[in-house]
Amino acid sequence: MIPEVAVVGATGWGTTVAMHIARQGRLVQLLVRDENEAARLNRDRRHPRLAEFEFPASLNVSADTAALSAIPLVIFGVPAQTMRTNLRQLAPLIGHHTVVAHLAKGLETETAKRMSEVIREEISSGHAAPIAVISGPNLSREVAAGLPSTTVVAADDDSASRSIQDLLMSPTFRVYTSGDVIGVELGGSLKNIVALGAGVADGLGLGDNAKAAFVTRGLAEITRLGVRAGAQPMTFQGLSGLGDLMATCYSPLSRNRRVGEQIAANRELDDILAELGEVAEGVQTVPAALKLAARLGVEMPITEQASAILFQGRSPGEALALLLEREPRAEVWGSEAAPVC
Amino acid sequence: MIPEVAVVGATGWGTTVAMHIARQGRLVQLLVRDENEAARLNRDRRHPRLAEFEFPASLNVSADTAALSAIPLVIFGVPAQTMRTNLRQLAPLIGHHTVVAHLAKGLETETAKRMSEVIREEISSGHAAPIAVISGPNLSREVAAGLPSTTVVAADDDSASRSIQDLLMSPTFRVYTSGDVIGVELGGSLKNIVALGAGVADGLGLGDNAKAAFVTRGLAEITRLGVRAGAQPMTFQGLSGLGDLMATCYSPLSRNRRVGEQIAANRELDDILAELGEVAEGVQTVPAALKLAARLGVEMPITEQASAILFQGRSPGEALALLLEREPRAEVWGSEAAPVC
Repeated sequence: MIPEVAVVGATGWGTTVAMHIARQGRLVQLLVRDENEAARLNRDRRHPRLAEFEFPASLNVSADTAALSAIPLVIFGVPAQTMRTNLRQLAPLIGHHTVVAHLAKGLETETAKRMSEVIREEISSGHAAPIAVISGPNLSREVAAGLPSTTVVAADDDSASRSIQDLLMSPTFRVYTSGDVIGVELGGSLKNIVALGAGVADGLGLGDNAKAAFVTRGLAEITRLGVRAGAQPMTFQGLSGLGDLMATCYSPLSRNRRVGEQIAANRELDDILAELGEVAEGVQTVPAALKLAARLGVEMPITEQASAILFQGRSPGEALALLLEREPRAEVWGSEAAPVC
Repeated sequence: MIPEVAVVGATGWGTTVAMHIARQGRLVQLLVRDENEAARLNRDRRHPRLAEFEFPASLNVSADTAALSAIPLVIFGVPAQTMRTNLRQLAPLIGHHTVVAHLAKGLETETAKRMSEVIREEISSGHAAPIAVISGPNLSREVAAGLPSTTVVAADDDSASRSIQDLLMSPTFRVYTSGDVIGVELGGSLKNIVALGAGVADGLGLGDNAKAAFVTRGLAEITRLGVRAGAQPMTFQGLSGLGDLMATCYSPLSRNRRVGEQIAANRELDDILAELGEVAEGVQTVPAALKLAARLGVEMPITEQASAILFQGRSPGEALALLLEREPRAEVWGSEAAPVC
């Protein structure tokens, strides 16, 4: 039997989405790198980082790409920085009428491109189906545990987003559609930068007043960039914007937030990332966001400080002092006017 | 010497604001109910719920209203439901050129009025100075501890909000001005309703995905009401809106959030409030918000469920199920479209 969906990449979130769809009684292929990984996952029937959750029977793990051309929906669950490589390998095998969706919350560092742009560039020229993004406040472990969650599917084509909505919807997983691909992709990617900073605030013990002010300012900053890049401003107020931002900035489960916390404890970035075991998309998205901002002429004070901390050895305390001293423009803070001293 | 400021009411936040201003070297009178309270506070030189923080020397606690007519700024730190009673007693003593500000984050239950409306109604007819509100993500304990915080001062009159900004500003307490009194008052009051619900979500163990979705939806709901009541929508995206909402929904220090948590543990509201020791403004603001919403024709699904839980014995689980089942309109979730099932 041909699976209804293929999920590419056994990342924590990719695997969770594959399990979630399979739990709704659908036949799902989790497509992994090689036979060894397939054999291991088929033997254990669980993901090593989500070991409490057994794979449903209708989840089939395999490295075999033979069925790919006949599967109507392929969801890429790989990290943003490996999306292009994965596509170069798989794009020739994907059917021209296969809807391609992705779960990645990052921008390509080299090009500052969104993942749907990368997919569009790499997919074969005869491909005639829509490209979609799935993004929202979705900590993998909670979705895997069946806790109530919401997400957003965005595509240029309404019927594609509605068919993915039908596929993903369950009593506890509520799926909303959007036509704003740019806004949903940028909201999901840029919030990871704010989460790094929120983690730094947590690590420095700045308290909940300062953290709330920081996240508020962070949402304004990423909204400014998003709108200049062609997104709808309201998308940043929705589940895939503010919702995902809050989940990521406040949850102990958030990887990007944890990276910030470790940075505040003066640990080396390489050590932190090595220990994390999975990708923290925010780190690679910082330089991409600055590229995009420079191209579009948008000021990004928080992202600039994040970059200085991550890549130029600036201390979190100094970055914080620079942000506090800064005279923000009124719009940064909603309709409030800046302090005069 | 005549104090530069009087703060009325030795609530946790009123006392903290008085301490903060006194720490900047200003002479402040903390005006309390009676001689006994004044004597106790003058003896201890600290507030019983903020016992780590000693009063600065320039903070003078007294029940004596003799100086009131000559003090250029009087800040009411009393709870929303006692604002009118306090004003009836003190209004005749307040100078006609005294700027009157308040710190209360609630609406009057009986009338659904904002505090600046109550002040305007009760102040003597000859009073000719502006009325202001001070509101933001300001957990008292953190401000008392000198952790970095931000707040917003709103008044119809720019020079009044700027003079209060000058008075409150310090290197760690950053003060922004706004002309949107309605938006700042409603943001500060209505967020307490969302915080009750966020506490319920915490108490039920729903997880960070569900909580983030709930708070996102909560901000949309209170923004809708606020805008219909005459507020600027952007104010709800700023520090006194989103900022205060996040601090209140996520901090372990937030009283309103804690009340929700206790409700989810099936405790009786009266017992919870008795134990709390201080007012949880959200509880009294729920009926006021529903009155205002009915008057303005705004749907408030979250506030309605909060009211049913608080006052009609609906179980939190049932209220949650009703919210999850509900078919939200697209605008509720930013630009996303509602699920079809």
